[in-house]
Amino acid sequence: MSFQNPVFIPGPTNMPEAIRKACDMPTIDHRSPLFGQILHPVRANVREILKSTSAEIFIFPSTGTGGWETAITNTLSPGDTVLAARNGMFSHKWIDMCQRHGLNVMMVETAWGQGIPTDRFAEILADDKDHKIKAVLATHNETATGVRSDIAGVRRAMDTSNHPAMLFVDGVSSIASMDFRFDEWGVDVAVTGSQKGFMLPAGLAIVGFSKRAVEATKTAGLHRTFFDINDMTKGYDANAYPYTPAVGLMNGLLLATETLLKEGMENVFARHNRIASGVRAAVDAWGLELCAASPDLYSDTVSAIMTPEGFNASDIVSHAAEKYGVAFGTGLGDVAGKVFRIGHLGSMTDVMALSGIATAEMCMVDLGLDIKLGSGVAAAQEFYMGKTQTVPMKDAA
Amino acid sequence: MSFQNPVFIPGPTNMPEAIRKACDMPTIDHRSPLFGQILHPVRANVREILKSTSAEIFIFPSTGTGGWETAITNTLSPGDTVLAARNGMFSHKWIDMCQRHGLNVMMVETAWGQGIPTDRFAEILADDKDHKIKAVLATHNETATGVRSDIAGVRRAMDTSNHPAMLFVDGVSSIASMDFRFDEWGVDVAVTGSQKGFMLPAGLAIVGFSKRAVEATKTAGLHRTFFDINDMTKGYDANAYPYTPAVGLMNGLLLATETLLKEGMENVFARHNRIASGVRAAVDAWGLELCAASPDLYSDTVSAIMTPEGFNASDIVSHAAEKYGVAFGTGLGDVAGKVFRIGHLGSMTDVMALSGIATAEMCMVDLGLDIKLGSGVAAAQEFYMGKTQTVPMKDAA
Amino acid sequence: MSFQNPVFIPGPTNMPEAIRKACDMPTIDHRSPLFGQILHPVRANVREILKSTSAEIFIFPSTGTGGWETAITNTLSPGDTVLAARNGMFSHKWIDMCQRHGLNVMMVETAWGQGIPTDRFAEILADDKDHKIKAVLATHNETATGVRSDIAGVRRAMDTSNHPAMLFVDGVSSIASMDFRFDEWGVDVAVTGSQKGFMLPAGLAIVGFSKRAVEATKTAGLHRTFFDINDMTKGYDANAYPYTPAVGLMNGLLLATETLLKEGMENVFARHNRIASGVRAAVDAWGLELCAASPDLYSDTVSAIMTPEGFNASDIVSHAAEKYGVAFGTGLGDVAGKVFRIGHLGSMTDVMALSGIATAEMCMVDLGLDIKLGSGVAAAQEFYMGKTQTVPMKDAA
Amino acid sequence: MSFQNPVFIPGPTNMPEAIRKACDMPTIDHRSPLFGQILHPVRANVREILKSTSAEIFIFPSTGTGGWETAITNTLSPGDTVLAARNGMFSHKWIDMCQRHGLNVMMVETAWGQGIPTDRFAEILADDKDHKIKAVLATHNETATGVRSDIAGVRRAMDTSNHPAMLFVDGVSSIASMDFRFDEWGVDVAVTGSQKGFMLPAGLAIVGFSKRAVEATKTAGLHRTFFDINDMTKGYDANAYPYTPAVGLMNGLLLATETLLKEGMENVFARHNRIASGVRAAVDAWGLELCAASPDLYSDTVSAIMTPEGFNASDIVSHAAEKYGVAFGTGLGDVAGKVFRIGHLGSMTDVMALSGIATAEMCMVDLGLDIKLGSGVAAAQEFYMGKTQTVPMKDAA
Repeated sequence: MSFQNPVFIPGPTNMPEAIRKACDMPTIDHRSPLFGQILHPVRANVREILKSTSAEIFIFPSTGTGGWETAITNTLSPGDTVLAARNGMFSHKWIDMCQRHGLNVMMVETAWGQGIPTDRFAEILADDKDHKIKAVLATHNETATGVRSDIAGVRRAMDTSNHPAMLFVDGVSSIASMDFRFDEWGVDVAVTGSQKGFMLPAGLAIVGFSKRAVEATKTAGLHRTFFDINDMTKGYDANAYPYTPAVGLMNGLLLATETLLKEGMENVFARHNRIASGVRAAVDAWGLELCAASPDLYSDTVSAIMTPEGFNASDIVSHAAEKYGVAFGTGLGDVAGKVFRIGHLGSMTDVMALSGIATAEMCMVDLGLDIKLGSGVAAAQEFYMGKTQTVPMKDAA
Repeated sequence: MSFQNPVFIPGPTNMPEAIRKACDMPTIDHRSPLFGQILHPVRANVREILKSTSAEIFIFPSTGTGGWETAITNTLSPGDTVLAARNGMFSHKWIDMCQRHGLNVMMVETAWGQGIPTDRFAEILADDKDHKIKAVLATHNETATGVRSDIAGVRRAMDTSNHPAMLFVDGVSSIASMDFRFDEWGVDVAVTGSQKGFMLPAGLAIVGFSKRAVEATKTAGLHRTFFDINDMTKGYDANAYPYTPAVGLMNGLLLATETLLKEGMENVFARHNRIASGVRAAVDAWGLELCAASPDLYSDTVSAIMTPEGFNASDIVSHAAEKYGVAFGTGLGDVAGKVFRIGHLGSMTDVMALSGIATAEMCMVDLGLDIKLGSGVAAAQEFYMGKTQTVPMKDAA
Repeated sequence: MSFQNPVFIPGPTNMPEAIRKACDMPTIDHRSPLFGQILHPVRANVREILKSTSAEIFIFPSTGTGGWETAITNTLSPGDTVLAARNGMFSHKWIDMCQRHGLNVMMVETAWGQGIPTDRFAEILADDKDHKIKAVLATHNETATGVRSDIAGVRRAMDTSNHPAMLFVDGVSSIASMDFRFDEWGVDVAVTGSQKGFMLPAGLAIVGFSKRAVEATKTAGLHRTFFDINDMTKGYDANAYPYTPAVGLMNGLLLATETLLKEGMENVFARHNRIASGVRAAVDAWGLELCAASPDLYSDTVSAIMTPEGFNASDIVSHAAEKYGVAFGTGLGDVAGKVFRIGHLGSMTDVMALSGIATAEMCMVDLGLDIKLGSGVAAAQEFYMGKTQTVPMKDAA
Repeated sequence: MSFQNPVFIPGPTNMPEAIRKACDMPTIDHRSPLFGQILHPVRANVREILKSTSAEIFIFPSTGTGGWETAITNTLSPGDTVLAARNGMFSHKWIDMCQRHGLNVMMVETAWGQGIPTDRFAEILADDKDHKIKAVLATHNETATGVRSDIAGVRRAMDTSNHPAMLFVDGVSSIASMDFRFDEWGVDVAVTGSQKGFMLPAGLAIVGFSKRAVEATKTAGLHRTFFDINDMTKGYDANAYPYTPAVGLMNGLLLATETLLKEGMENVFARHNRIASGVRAAVDAWGLELCAASPDLYSDTVSAIMTPEGFNASDIVSHAAEKYGVAFGTGLGDVAGKVFRIGHLGSMTDVMALSGIATAEMCMVDLGLDIKLGSGVAAAQEFYMGKTQTVPMKDAA
């Protein structure tokens, strides 16, 4: 196992030098104004990345899962109804959390590989005349299947029937890598983490609340303390936190957001799309298919690649780790053994992506699949050659 | 503000070089056996540091506050009664959490500066014939007042009346710095964090559960997902976590625990006692008093120092930061303005402690207190000279 | 320019995490025994890597060029004659240094791409009945041409005529990557640096002297102070240096040598050979030729690849840097514009090598060369698949 | 031995976090324009710190000793005469180097503790009607004795007799900490290193040459290659070096010079003076004397403190290291055993200085000297309280 090779798991991602160094910070007094110099700009930057002008941003020493819990416990009460599609491991887990917190989940079973069925959502919402549904839960990017759902479509499904439910979006593996429009899509709670598009170690839940979602805390009956957003808000003016913040990670997040905003979010999205397109060209050259059922669903952060019937896709993952010291993502839940995943988000270059593609090829051939060595690499190269822009020398980081 | 000076807040503490470097780790696949090479030994080491042979250890990407929530949500149900003393900011906050989670707290108001009133606890427990009290909450070391309570005494108070309540101990600012005996004291849940005795950045809640506490999860009605210990246990054999672990911090914790165990816990405790005693000698030389009411209550991790009537102790903290670039702890809650705190836990040496004492002297004189420059330093020097052992050259770290 | 991509210059090389961290050391007193704990084992380890039992090892805060100067100024006097072949930029530069130091260089002009002409050396040495030649200079691995010369053959050329000259070997880009036998080959001075096989930043000249070379210092008339080996020797027993040593780099060298010796030098050599062979397979697949004239001359640390007549090979280097953020080595001196170089020494994996090969392919096609995308990658993959051993998980570093 | 304590050796100094991180840089292609982005500004910044508008700046992977060798070998020929005072270990060593390089040193023996005898220099230079003296060597700050000499006075001594000799100044432990005026003082070669005022690890010789000194290279007969300044100059336009530069250290030097210039050199000098004055106040309070004979000679970077007759001052150094894990400087050469040294240059705060003073007190009392605990600390505190400015919070680094 070599720390020299890039990782190709769909998060935590490869981390840029400078961001790692910003995280590796000596101890400061988190009750001093010095902490405010991190806290306030980082919240502003995250808001900007969410394309929001008004979202309240909360950053917990936790993970995306904690972000889900923040979303529901601050806004809902036991017995409340929420609407969600189950189309992958992460939507499954969020639903499971809701159920364990005493919520009534109206679950739409959806094929893994499909996106959120917005038409079905529209029907359900239209039928919900009494507005029992308090919140619609949407997993923007299913990390398990490499499927990006249409959040604008979910919003339209809600608007069609003028349904007043809140919209909660899991953007853990999309935010800061793919376009996300908090205000335009009318998102009420957006959830993400530090270890994906923000290129940091795991350890932060990053959550945005609309004014309406903040308002909902007044009546929300679910218990919460660690994840209580009002405890957070209370201290902001005094640069304070309800408990000890993860200062180093937040300092890293400050640099990460500055770096992303300096690159320009549309450029960041284009870069992810380019790298992902190269990987998809390779998959096509191999004669394989993505788990994602159609191009409009293709994720730019992770590709779940289906292997032939009778082949255990997880063998690729363990073989790559053991023989080549490279980490790919394994199949999870319903698609365990059926797919392996190449994560291509975060701090990734075309060149790194090519080494992942080349490694996947070797593994598949080693394990007996009928793949031509170099074929996927050539397809990706061809794509990258046409699309890669000159790298500004001065921006080395 | 200089990063070159030590910090004297009672956590996060100064961090050793090697431990910082262990935290600053490149990304690995947390679903691979490599993660198990961190997870399993770190749990075993924490158990050993707790002086337990059987405690189940859980490590969450969170903080001590998350550890409190782990303790109660995994074991209790809404309406359950718990017994707790309120003798400082942190016991206050834990009580507040319990109330917000729908628990019935039998609270014993206790003077800030006093320890847990074990006699009063004994009476209450003896009176609780119906065993309504499901858990006794004890803050081992009140970080706000520098008071160490007698956990063995709490256990005796429970045993006297053969009370079956569980014993939950907040050891956030004691564990790994002062003696803690999970098994001997019959602790059911012990809670700590990464940023105190373990000398790491904030970001981990570290929790130990007795078999009995684990058993209690079966009937516990409080909602939990992020902090569910059974979700943790499930994955251990497969080196798995229910969500993305904070791998770098856990790797740092592995080195921290190895370092502590190599030094020997009794030596670690003696070191903290020596450094704390020097600080207390300085306080005495200044003619000031500790917030802790009597020597048996003195904390070896933090000293809360009372300043004269009419003087705002918090001015020392802001003045030290602004003029000398040194961070002390401010007074919190009921003792805000009345005390300032010198944290002397974690990676601290006699020499560093002397620089904190010297800085406190300058600040107090700057601000008009009648303190003799060098007096506290001399008293601490005298103490350290007699107690400091030769530093083994080979153990430089 | 991305720091995320590997570099493919023939040194400084990619550096392992752990070695970088060992270099990044806080200040210690270099006049204390603590420094001896670095100095003595590092000298012993370097000696072992040179396959010597008796060489005196000197480590200067300098580079390989300083090592050359150490070799000649400690052993020779103005007007002394040395024998050397000029077959690349680095042999050229060492010869130039000798001339500027007033030595009489008997230079054998040799085609760039050829190794040291041992037969010609044998003739010259046999003709030198008066033993005017005081030293034979040999560049083990010509970094400019990717040519490894036959040092055992040079020794035979000397022994045939029983010539008493000393043998000085520049092993800057061979030592610790390719087999080097100080004792067996009768080397008198071996010169290397920190930034190649030792995987460190530049900044150390590492030099081994035979007893005979040490003896020669007594009569050597060339001036020297900074590079005087006797000043070094004098202080060793007291852990002292004649001036401030580069402690951090030496600490890094300690870890680097421990890491190499733990892997086993024969395994290290085999690894370099494997990675180099993959690169050579790619070159062959591209229909290109190496600058090195024949397989016995192929270097396992750097491949200089000839491009077709009329094509400026340096364009590949600048294009790779600008478009793909990847650093290759440019052609130097007589072969400037005719070759580009892929460095494959130091901390390199098969997977990293594949990304370099893939990048070179894209650049060559971008620039109009008739190369088939994926062809070199496929050839290298095929080679690596057959040769790569399982990577021990526990040795992650 | 703890890496947590500051060091009090007169270099290498304590290093700021940010500068350490700038040094710990991944490998870049040092033959690419990226290197020029470090090289050119760093040379400009060093020039500005030297208070020169025209000095040519050269940066070698070496140390101050290499800088001395650079000065003499680039400008002088065997048999040339130089004038120098021997008033400490470092002037002694430079003289020794000159002699070993075949120069004729007109040496003025001077008491250790005295500065350069400018009157005696004036006489000698006036007597040298034939201008045999080609260069005057002056050690600005004798690190062994804590004596700062009067370089302006040396210049006046030369100008009085209109002597055309060049003026070479060793500013290793003065430059960037105490005022240095290359142009105003008519310095021809200034020598320093990375590990003192620049707060970096050892490993760079930093040298400034006047136009006249550059001109002298044309006739200089001493051999040189590694330290040849013309080899350096040749490559500058192409961002090139004659050999592999120590890129990371140079990147650190870039940040160090930026940091110093941002603070303002006069502020930097005032800071060193303040910290040194506090140390001197402590020495006075202890009833001890400095080795430096009079206040005009006091160095602001290091204090050499004389201990009573019959006491081995070096015992303080070893005792401090062994018992308290603190490094002081030992006495060297003629004052070995008679003085111990407190280095107070580089990245040092008042608070750190106080911990060094406190430690020295404990050591002296431990070893039987009649010193009052806290006395030196109190004297320094009193000084610092009056002089320390508020620390700008935003400049934390």
